[in-house]
Amino acid sequence: MAKWVYTFGAGLVDGDASMTALLGGKGANLAEMSVMGLPVPPGFTISTDVCSYFYANNKTLPPELDDQLAAAIAGINKATGREFGNPENPLLVSVRSGSRASMPGMMDTVLNLGMNDKAVEIFAEKTGDARFAYDSYRRFIQMYADVVLGVDHDFFEEVLDDAKDVNGYENDTELTADDWQKVIARYKEVIEEELDEPFPQDPHEQLLGAIKAVFSSWMNQRAVIYRSINRIPSNWGTAVSVQAMVFGNMGEDSATGVAFTRNPSTGENALYGEFLVNAQGEDVVAGIRTPHDLTEKARLEAGSNKASLEKLMPEAFDELNAVASKLEAHFRDVQDVEFTIERGKLWMLQTRSGKRTAKAAMRIAVDMAEEGLITKEEAVCAIEPGSLDQLLHPTIADGAVRTIIATGLPASPGAATGEIVFNPDEVEGLKNQGRDIILVRVETSPEDIHGMNAAQGILTQRGGMTSHAAVVARGMGKPCVSGAGMIKVDYHKGELSCQGRVFKKGDIITIDGGKGQVLDGRVQMQQPELSGAFGVIMGWADEIRRMKVRTNSDTPKEAKAAHSFGAEGIGLCRTEHMFFEEDRIRIVRDMIIADTELERREALDKLLPMQRNDFIELFEIMAGMPVTIRLLDPPLHEFLPHEESDIIQVAQSMGIDPEKLKSRSTILHEFNPMLGHRGCRLLISYPEIAEMQARAIFEAAIEAGRRAGSKVIPEIMIPLVSLKRELDYVKATIDAVAKQVAEEKGEEIEYQVGTMIELPRSAIRAGEIAEAAEFFSFGTNDLTQTTFGISRDDATQFIPTYEAKGIVDRDPFISLDLDGVGDLMRIATERGRVTRENLVLGICGEHGGDPDSINFCESIGLNYVSCSPFRVPIARLAAAQATIKYGK
Amino acid sequence: MAKWVYTFGAGLVDGDASMTALLGGKGANLAEMSVMGLPVPPGFTISTDVCSYFYANNKTLPPELDDQLAAAIAGINKATGREFGNPENPLLVSVRSGSRASMPGMMDTVLNLGMNDKAVEIFAEKTGDARFAYDSYRRFIQMYADVVLGVDHDFFEEVLDDAKDVNGYENDTELTADDWQKVIARYKEVIEEELDEPFPQDPHEQLLGAIKAVFSSWMNQRAVIYRSINRIPSNWGTAVSVQAMVFGNMGEDSATGVAFTRNPSTGENALYGEFLVNAQGEDVVAGIRTPHDLTEKARLEAGSNKASLEKLMPEAFDELNAVASKLEAHFRDVQDVEFTIERGKLWMLQTRSGKRTAKAAMRIAVDMAEEGLITKEEAVCAIEPGSLDQLLHPTIADGAVRTIIATGLPASPGAATGEIVFNPDEVEGLKNQGRDIILVRVETSPEDIHGMNAAQGILTQRGGMTSHAAVVARGMGKPCVSGAGMIKVDYHKGELSCQGRVFKKGDIITIDGGKGQVLDGRVQMQQPELSGAFGVIMGWADEIRRMKVRTNSDTPKEAKAAHSFGAEGIGLCRTEHMFFEEDRIRIVRDMIIADTELERREALDKLLPMQRNDFIELFEIMAGMPVTIRLLDPPLHEFLPHEESDIIQVAQSMGIDPEKLKSRSTILHEFNPMLGHRGCRLLISYPEIAEMQARAIFEAAIEAGRRAGSKVIPEIMIPLVSLKRELDYVKATIDAVAKQVAEEKGEEIEYQVGTMIELPRSAIRAGEIAEAAEFFSFGTNDLTQTTFGISRDDATQFIPTYEAKGIVDRDPFISLDLDGVGDLMRIATERGRVTRENLVLGICGEHGGDPDSINFCESIGLNYVSCSPFRVPIARLAAAQATIKYGK
Repeated sequence: MAKWVYTFGAGLVDGDASMTALLGGKGANLAEMSVMGLPVPPGFTISTDVCSYFYANNKTLPPELDDQLAAAIAGINKATGREFGNPENPLLVSVRSGSRASMPGMMDTVLNLGMNDKAVEIFAEKTGDARFAYDSYRRFIQMYADVVLGVDHDFFEEVLDDAKDVNGYENDTELTADDWQKVIARYKEVIEEELDEPFPQDPHEQLLGAIKAVFSSWMNQRAVIYRSINRIPSNWGTAVSVQAMVFGNMGEDSATGVAFTRNPSTGENALYGEFLVNAQGEDVVAGIRTPHDLTEKARLEAGSNKASLEKLMPEAFDELNAVASKLEAHFRDVQDVEFTIERGKLWMLQTRSGKRTAKAAMRIAVDMAEEGLITKEEAVCAIEPGSLDQLLHPTIADGAVRTIIATGLPASPGAATGEIVFNPDEVEGLKNQGRDIILVRVETSPEDIHGMNAAQGILTQRGGMTSHAAVVARGMGKPCVSGAGMIKVDYHKGELSCQGRVFKKGDIITIDGGKGQVLDGRVQMQQPELSGAFGVIMGWADEIRRMKVRTNSDTPKEAKAAHSFGAEGIGLCRTEHMFFEEDRIRIVRDMIIADTELERREALDKLLPMQRNDFIELFEIMAGMPVTIRLLDPPLHEFLPHEESDIIQVAQSMGIDPEKLKSRSTILHEFNPMLGHRGCRLLISYPEIAEMQARAIFEAAIEAGRRAGSKVIPEIMIPLVSLKRELDYVKATIDAVAKQVAEEKGEEIEYQVGTMIELPRSAIRAGEIAEAAEFFSFGTNDLTQTTFGISRDDATQFIPTYEAKGIVDRDPFISLDLDGVGDLMRIATERGRVTRENLVLGICGEHGGDPDSINFCESIGLNYVSCSPFRVPIARLAAAQATIKYGK
Repeated sequence: MAKWVYTFGAGLVDGDASMTALLGGKGANLAEMSVMGLPVPPGFTISTDVCSYFYANNKTLPPELDDQLAAAIAGINKATGREFGNPENPLLVSVRSGSRASMPGMMDTVLNLGMNDKAVEIFAEKTGDARFAYDSYRRFIQMYADVVLGVDHDFFEEVLDDAKDVNGYENDTELTADDWQKVIARYKEVIEEELDEPFPQDPHEQLLGAIKAVFSSWMNQRAVIYRSINRIPSNWGTAVSVQAMVFGNMGEDSATGVAFTRNPSTGENALYGEFLVNAQGEDVVAGIRTPHDLTEKARLEAGSNKASLEKLMPEAFDELNAVASKLEAHFRDVQDVEFTIERGKLWMLQTRSGKRTAKAAMRIAVDMAEEGLITKEEAVCAIEPGSLDQLLHPTIADGAVRTIIATGLPASPGAATGEIVFNPDEVEGLKNQGRDIILVRVETSPEDIHGMNAAQGILTQRGGMTSHAAVVARGMGKPCVSGAGMIKVDYHKGELSCQGRVFKKGDIITIDGGKGQVLDGRVQMQQPELSGAFGVIMGWADEIRRMKVRTNSDTPKEAKAAHSFGAEGIGLCRTEHMFFEEDRIRIVRDMIIADTELERREALDKLLPMQRNDFIELFEIMAGMPVTIRLLDPPLHEFLPHEESDIIQVAQSMGIDPEKLKSRSTILHEFNPMLGHRGCRLLISYPEIAEMQARAIFEAAIEAGRRAGSKVIPEIMIPLVSLKRELDYVKATIDAVAKQVAEEKGEEIEYQVGTMIELPRSAIRAGEIAEAAEFFSFGTNDLTQTTFGISRDDATQFIPTYEAKGIVDRDPFISLDLDGVGDLMRIATERGRVTRENLVLGICGEHGGDPDSINFCESIGLNYVSCSPFRVPIARLAAAQATIKYGK
């Protein structure tokens, strides 16, 4: 016969903490506490298998359940000396839900079950507190009617209000036992009026009703939504725990409260929590009375005049403290417990892993490791890598009021407040006046970089997680919300409108780049602070991890930031970003406008010393660590102006006919620039570009090497290769330049040439391509675009619909699509290494900073990940966790 | 010791026809003819291994070669009774190149080698023809000096011109023996002046020089270019054949000529060729004298008064005829032979497979199979599938003069002449006036279809082999040259300019869509004619082939054409093409402009009956054969006007504010439409579109089934799937509609739902996708675009450079990239069939009509190929050849 029911408490325990799948988190931990000999009110858990049965069988319970319930109840009867269903000696129970994953407040609970007209009298007699007894009964009726019988709680509130009005009371507490008896009578009438049936007096009937109601609540709307947001499978189901009631509201020697074994906000190793004397759990939550601090120290720090538990009930406090230590040592993690003190006796009602801030998590992990409670590896695994964003960026203060105007993509973490400005050219001047600016654009382009740089944050109407705005903002460590499709930006009117509201230039908004929210006005912020624990955890992570962590940095500023965050080299330097600076863009445009190779070479000759200096600086910052430089990648039209007025202005400053500029722009126009004349295709059409860049790199390497007194070995990366012959061609150009420079400088040059793997074909043909490439770097942004056939810049048109309709779980531009893109990466890794055993493999797409993606990179044995500077710590931690998972 | 030399002729034969890799085509066939006992002047072939040695060893010959040469020469001496190097009894030889693949005229030849000052006298004496002897000597000097010594032939022409001037001669033939002697003396002086060395008199020295020169000519520029065009690997190398000279210019009983065993133009089974009496081979080629026909019949047909060989030298003719029959029977193919008659004796100098027109190839293959010479399979393999284009389209007449204005891509075969017109709206009217139009556009869009339909041919400045213009033109069977990047179309001026030349509207041009040429003016055409042999070959191909051949047809007209060409169903009906018709585009635009689902549904309701009628017609034309209908694929903005003036006009006709249309257009604008909101992404965003289309299909299937009295089972295809859940979602929509329609009509509906595999991710995830898909159709156009990351519309910017620089051999949009795209297809096929053993697999990209790609499809076991109507016969033939290659 299937086992449906598992008992706990009072010596009889069927389960333990490992059985969360079957018993839910609450049930499993109640069993575990019983095993540990802690004071748990006796009870039992009906397993999640029953929930599955319930939904598979038209919401009925298995026939064998009755017998198992009876046996389990008999156990409680025995342990408590009371009897469920016997009005002369009533046993009251609570019925609670509990699933594998915590879903706080999503499902239903019934307390004081077993109460009826008869039992309440005996209960009053036994407790000597009639008011308490009738109050408990009316609470039960109210809760049961709402949860099980489906009678709206408004009916009962009306009754209660009437009762208070009649008696001229202000608060519920003023009602006497008699008043409650009248209220109860009226409650029962209401129920009978609504249902044409009396309120059930039989405790067994009550129990079955409550069990079914809890199972049913697994599928209520708010639970379904919560699961979909938190990606909890609906087939997990919930368990139901039935437990003897204990009462924190049995007088001044009773209390109820919640406690963390350590401070969840600071991580301090001291019991932390609050309680109420003479109250039930719901009173603590309801917030009608202000709770007391548990410890004297906390009371003093808070300046509270409400006595601490430590003072009020020293024995119970000591016991709670001892239980907390025991639990923490046992579960090897901070615990969040619920307790009740009934007439001086402590009862534990729940324990679970305690939620904490990123800062607290750091301190707790380090402390616990240093206390010897956990290993360094466990400490490293205890930190959610993504949570480090909270430590590295200003964020919106906890509890601050958010008036959300619009939502978009969480493109770059951190929060910022400022005036709306639409024109990037205006930002710098305003910044110099000391004003904070949020740059708002339909989308950004490389021409906007100066404005982005001067702004506090960036908001765009269009563009995905890897749009220009998102990538650049992350590189700068600035908050950005991209693809906020619900807003409409009208440059002409200087307006941002959203669902009927209009914001003008100069209006204040706040963006939360970690959540993708746009908020009205100024919102309270909290500033980041890096504790010593952060450094300790990072140090441990570095000891543990196998993969190196590099950075995607294009400028000295970014490279320095990344270096300070622990980057071990540059995995991607996008040289084109160097082309957009004020003094260079003109020369770049001269090059593009050139009619002949000779003219093109003249312009390139002017760029050479600039690029060389860029590279010298990068080599010096990275001081001997690897630096991978990608040759020019974007299509040339990105460097030309597009708006009529800009064209005229640029043409004038270039001293050419606007028609010429326009015609060049037309010739370069592409239907799908993403799939156009870019990357190695440009380098093959115009080898002189590759020549200039290679020369700048080699000359810089020699110069930086001389200054440092040790050789710099640059890594040159060819973008957008799909054919081995493309790589061969560009490599031949580079090799020839290396030979020339070596001869000119009288110095041998060491360097590596490798390729991006960012097209499905190069992944498939990796075996052949590895014959020519010394390293691969997975460009997972483009690889995701081409593997899915989705333009990241256009994806905002339908990805929200896809998420809403459950077609995708996570945006594949944020977290690697392991099944598709990942499979291509795996194929490329395997095929590449067959050809070249010591092939160096890395990732430099935005996924290089995403913990789940980093985990995958470890699983296929990449040598390093590379990400934007501010994600370097996240990557270091995630890489260590991945090493622990997969072994060195 | 390595064997370097292989003898033939005179009983001593070391080789045979199978040894073309080692002996070259010429050498191997000379050996084969010797084995057959045919009259071949004795000689030997120096193998291609020597060529490899020559290039691997700094252009030197292997040391053992000397001895082997001596032995081989001794053999010729013995067979001819003459002696190489003995001036008293000189043996003259020819030295010719011969590689595995025919490379006509690309490499060098030396005739009359062995001649020197002494030998020429004896030769004059022995032949009794001093003029002939000295003429032979001077020819040798001239050729040797050019080929071996590198002395420019201009020098010799000057000498010859002087000699003629002095004597007042018009032609070379007027020079006497004495004159030639003087010319020879002067030739030798020239050589000594140029080289500071006398002309070599030693025949052995001459021979080694000539052998080296022939090997060297393997790498001359024209040979290198020829190989690169014809994709002949350069490591094949050439062999050198040395052969005793025979002379067709030894008087009126001597002759030389070429013959085909059957007529290469018509295929008629009769000896066909021409000859000259008293001449050497080069005279026939030079065209100074008009050659005679071989047969009396041919002479009469040609109305020639020059005696046929049949009449002039009946014995030699009979022998030639017999040799021809023998050769054809032996090689089981039409032979193209060179022969010389020396004083009445026939000598065979070469035989090879004869080139022929497509029409002749058909007839020959059928005749030879019916004669029992070859099997049906061999007959089917004897036809180059691509050559069928010649039979299906008008082409430019052989020998017509082509004044090439520009070149582009051979986007759709056939040729057409007409007036230039730029505006598609004007074409129809002009056509109705009986005028022929070539529609010239920068690129075409679906709005241009009516103009394309009325034009004789289409020329575009931009766009690749799978651009809109190309795809639509092939569907219509109209000539098209696309991506002619060297022309500039200026709509405003009404001009087409190209490299300084300007053509106005109304000017006459001709396009050759088979070659990608744009020609000035009117050019002579030849009309297609389908012979009975065509039908016979197609019938045999159909008996043999395993794969089915379907068609990509969107309209009843196309479907009818394809049906008449033997299509066995529709593999791809692009429903969006039905949306562009005059009466529908307005409704489609209403749908796009709709603000609500309700408005959208109203527009769709109007489209429903139109789509239904389209489908009924297609089902009726295909009469029970499978019809695969693809749901809406292109992004919605393709249906909206883009030019300012068009927007205003369209908005007016729609009765809406132009601003609304513009704003909708802006919202729908995409950076990379190819990777945008299209395909199943649209069907998921707007399920009502899928609903309307599914309803139209089901209602049409029921109606067509009722009319035909047998069930129609439509195949519905979902485009652009990358995730199984996308397919699930759209399939659920279709299934729901099927259920509804079935209930309404009271009839069960059978149908299949499948998917395009056109994105790398769907290829990789084929195993999972096959759980939901009943069939796959490889959309290799998009699959090539995404696998390579190349937009076909932009590829013309760099593909020509890639071809010029040897980065790609063939445009991957024309012939499948087997290594990359092909590997993904193989993976998808394997993974799909693991999940669903009987999964139906086809290809509907443009590659479905490319013979090499069809061959690949057979190799991975696809069930069918689908191609544009006019390529159906090509596909039928290619599929049969592939079946023969891989077995059923």
